[in-house]
Amino acid sequence: MKISEKIILVSASPRRRQILEEAGFRFEVIPTAVDESFDPDLPAEKVPEVLARRKVEAFPYEDPRQIILGADTVVIVNGRILNKPEDRQEAVEMLKGLSDNTHRVVTGVCIRANNSLITFSDTTLVHFKALSPQEIDYYVDHFSPYDKAGGYGVQDFIGMVGIDRLEGSFYNVMGLPVHQVYHHLKPYIRFGE
Amino acid sequence: MKISEKIILVSASPRRRQILEEAGFRFEVIPTAVDESFDPDLPAEKVPEVLARRKVEAFPYEDPRQIILGADTVVIVNGRILNKPEDRQEAVEMLKGLSDNTHRVVTGVCIRANNSLITFSDTTLVHFKALSPQEIDYYVDHFSPYDKAGGYGVQDFIGMVGIDRLEGSFYNVMGLPVHQVYHHLKPYIRFGE
Repeated sequence: MKISEKIILVSASPRRRQILEEAGFRFEVIPTAVDESFDPDLPAEKVPEVLARRKVEAFPYEDPRQIILGADTVVIVNGRILNKPEDRQEAVEMLKGLSDNTHRVVTGVCIRANNSLITFSDTTLVHFKALSPQEIDYYVDHFSPYDKAGGYGVQDFIGMVGIDRLEGSFYNVMGLPVHQVYHHLKPYIRFGE
Repeated sequence: MKISEKIILVSASPRRRQILEEAGFRFEVIPTAVDESFDPDLPAEKVPEVLARRKVEAFPYEDPRQIILGADTVVIVNGRILNKPEDRQEAVEMLKGLSDNTHRVVTGVCIRANNSLITFSDTTLVHFKALSPQEIDYYVDHFSPYDKAGGYGVQDFIGMVGIDRLEGSFYNVMGLPVHQVYHHLKPYIRFGE
């Protein structure tokens, strides 16, 4: 798979990098630093697109042969956005709130290519079975909840043993709806040798 | 996470091995070789449990402190089981049949532990968008469809860019409903240091 333009991922997330690599994309990673606050009146589902766009717009775009790709993921439970937990107690509280419950994961994506800018998002419903205090403590103490929205990784211990059902895209929960990214990059993809 | 007994995985699948490892299980791999034919009158959904049980029963179980774990995965589309494709043409035909269609992935699991034998299965619905002939050719020629039921891996290029939606467990599609395996092994799991 060859891409005629140079893709630049403006996100520092190691999961997004892994997804793009495993799907066969070649790209460069140049994270942009942006203010991640947002208007509290904005509907929760719209926040990731706004932040993804902000990340892309912060990149000094000069070469029209570059494709700039940004994304942002939020976890929404009971109508409220869960950010990354700031300390152990917040991580434990978040996981308690996800336990025996269904939440939504929304990833917003922004792509600047060919002098145009598009944004879109994908939503996955995720259900956790009831998590025991021992499972939550073990996860929080042995894994890395602090760099993840909602305090968990779908590909981590707690996601593997705790999620019994999802509806939508798995990779969207991991951080990037790769099937949609692929779709939007198709005009630049060639399959010849 | 510590398991009080010794787990033996009687499956050669590298995906099952990877899932168990990433979930934090320690285990040994000793594949058993069994006849994988089945009674054509058996409902397709029941076939994986029968084959998983056959794999476990083929293991020379002697030590009651061992836990023997076997699994089998089938892809069912339009009421018919898709096995592993035997040649390029069959792999292409399978993917054409999955394109723009919903199929079911059923993984049957058998666990022998503490002198008892249990079997269960999990079903995930998977939807592929319309796949182009170029995408199918590229996948079949550059990846490994021949060791996979239905001719695709959910974690491969074609699964990542082609599947826009699933309902159920992602890891079940990859080869093992790890949340269910964990649930059944819980009596043997300790979280202490």
